[in-house]
Amino acid sequence: MIRDWHIIDSTLREGEQFAASNFSLSDKIEIAKALDAFGVEYLELTTPVASKESRKALEIIAGLGLNAKILTHTRANLEDARVAVDCGVYGLDILFATSKELRKASHGKDITEIIEHSLEVIEYVKSKGKNVRFSSEDSFRSEKMDLLKIYAAADSVGVNRVGLADTVGVATPSQVRELVADVRAVVHCDIEFHGHNDTGCAIANAFEAVRSGATHIDTSILGIGERNGITPLGGFLARMFTTNPERLAQKYNLEMLPELDKMIATMTGVGIPFNNYLTGKYAYNHKAGMHLKAIYVNPGSYEIIPPQAFGVKRTLQIGSKLTGRNAIANRANEIGLELSFDSLQNVTKNIKNLADKADLSLKEIDELLFRANEKTA
Amino acid sequence: MIRDWHIIDSTLREGEQFAASNFSLSDKIEIAKALDAFGVEYLELTTPVASKESRKALEIIAGLGLNAKILTHTRANLEDARVAVDCGVYGLDILFATSKELRKASHGKDITEIIEHSLEVIEYVKSKGKNVRFSSEDSFRSEKMDLLKIYAAADSVGVNRVGLADTVGVATPSQVRELVADVRAVVHCDIEFHGHNDTGCAIANAFEAVRSGATHIDTSILGIGERNGITPLGGFLARMFTTNPERLAQKYNLEMLPELDKMIATMTGVGIPFNNYLTGKYAYNHKAGMHLKAIYVNPGSYEIIPPQAFGVKRTLQIGSKLTGRNAIANRANEIGLELSFDSLQNVTKNIKNLADKADLSLKEIDELLFRANEKTA
Repeated sequence: MIRDWHIIDSTLREGEQFAASNFSLSDKIEIAKALDAFGVEYLELTTPVASKESRKALEIIAGLGLNAKILTHTRANLEDARVAVDCGVYGLDILFATSKELRKASHGKDITEIIEHSLEVIEYVKSKGKNVRFSSEDSFRSEKMDLLKIYAAADSVGVNRVGLADTVGVATPSQVRELVADVRAVVHCDIEFHGHNDTGCAIANAFEAVRSGATHIDTSILGIGERNGITPLGGFLARMFTTNPERLAQKYNLEMLPELDKMIATMTGVGIPFNNYLTGKYAYNHKAGMHLKAIYVNPGSYEIIPPQAFGVKRTLQIGSKLTGRNAIANRANEIGLELSFDSLQNVTKNIKNLADKADLSLKEIDELLFRANEKTA
Repeated sequence: MIRDWHIIDSTLREGEQFAASNFSLSDKIEIAKALDAFGVEYLELTTPVASKESRKALEIIAGLGLNAKILTHTRANLEDARVAVDCGVYGLDILFATSKELRKASHGKDITEIIEHSLEVIEYVKSKGKNVRFSSEDSFRSEKMDLLKIYAAADSVGVNRVGLADTVGVATPSQVRELVADVRAVVHCDIEFHGHNDTGCAIANAFEAVRSGATHIDTSILGIGERNGITPLGGFLARMFTTNPERLAQKYNLEMLPELDKMIATMTGVGIPFNNYLTGKYAYNHKAGMHLKAIYVNPGSYEIIPPQAFGVKRTLQIGSKLTGRNAIANRANEIGLELSFDSLQNVTKNIKNLADKADLSLKEIDELLFRANEKTA
């Protein structure tokens, strides 16, 4: 049983750390409104201490009256937390690096000090009536006993969520499953997972996190973030769709996904990758003859998610060297021709050999079919 | 313990099913030679019955004398197998759809018939002294008992490998782990995994397959294939690098990866996605102040794979609104300036606020640093 889970979309925080992002205030408002209309439950924004405009954007977006709850991501220090609380946010996502690698290279504090600082900030944020998350950074290179100690301490002072972050994208699905389950056993609060994609497991890891008891998943549109990014919103929803499509369609306006992906691709200038989940140009393209044959009978034979669920369209590429007799027969039917088996066989062979040079257009295929029909008649 | 595993690169088969691929004969030879130089153990090519040029390419590439073993992918029928054997290949990868969905929409045969046809072809190929793989198609929507029956039958007549194919990209890492382990328990032969990426798990699934006893993983350069493709060669190697970097560097010429990715991006015209593993434009870009600070001390703090291992380079983006004092201090040092803490604090604040409009160039940062230095002096 997968318990209910929520999306914390971090396009406006992690996504701001993407190389090609520099969202203007109006970009940010547009992104926030679009994600809210899509139905995302939480929006995470850059810390207000990052820059003047970062603070202004946070205050304005927190004041928009969106359904999505507005969070900001701050270091675990009181100064930053005070500024964040003043911005009118719903909650604070605080973090502290816990791995040996990051402790050494970043803050130099030991686990006792990390707990001390963090609890102070958590208690301050709680005292201001705000929601608060404590996340370790680089959780999957941290000592498990350290993590459990920190999470249990945070839980004991009433933190709303603890976060596990695969900051360097090294976690495997099995490691995520195990660590989330271990954390689940020591805390009462919610559990958030944040996963980078350096080794290609960001979606799988988010999925395993949810299956093991995580309640909140960090995403960004197109997965934008530091380096090659994090769990992408669309890809994560594709994964979750296969377990409970009805629930997903209740929670989110899935047909808006192409619009969201396009918006970020345009604002950052990177375009939608050819291999993007659901909204990539070729995500629903079928080419091999064997695939085409089955798709005509039942699209579900080679599609695990109906394209219309996410507002996208199927394309059938019938003019390639890999096409098959069934695809060509289907086209003949569409243009009102009835050709014999042998005739179809011959035209198909002809198309395949011609397509060795370049794919044939529909017009070229139709001409070959009409010619074959004339020969027979 | 992960046993030794091999790559079957299918850029020349699955990759030909990618919408934007139409490789010429010379393209194919170039791809085969590049993959061979990279060190891939097997190359899978399109069936010779697809088109005239497909056959010619297979014969030529099988005759090149590469270290990589040449396989071709054919339906489980004798006619196709005979043509393939005649092309001088090392082996045949035969397949048969086994899921209810595909059996209905594709060939209409029941399990007994599938076994009968397949064994006939396997025995024929063996009699010709060739290597032979039998794969079910759409394995993860097939009945497990059917699959185990088929694999055991293939194993009993001496098949070299059985293949599990996640044809529609629906499998989860747990499902892969379980099914591979179950198959491992009933066959003596090698096990191959082929995974599509529709729900973002193709790399994680290949990794779990290897961990559970699979010996051969299908990849393609940039992951090109039907729809949004399969396990990408680069992404899979990024994943495997984290478990045994030395072994990986022995097996493959990893620094050639950028060349391979670029070759396919150019031939297909799709470009390398911004978020591509290892070779994407921003895969080693560091932007947030906290990240930059740690990277100066130890690149491994935010990089799980050293970029030089795969012939790529790190970029440090220090002119954004998210930059930090440490990054700016580091730049000051680079240009021979020694600024006070307060002065660096002020310049950093200034840079961050200016960068709210647009990232600052190194030249603009340097000017601000020189100006700050003059003020102090």
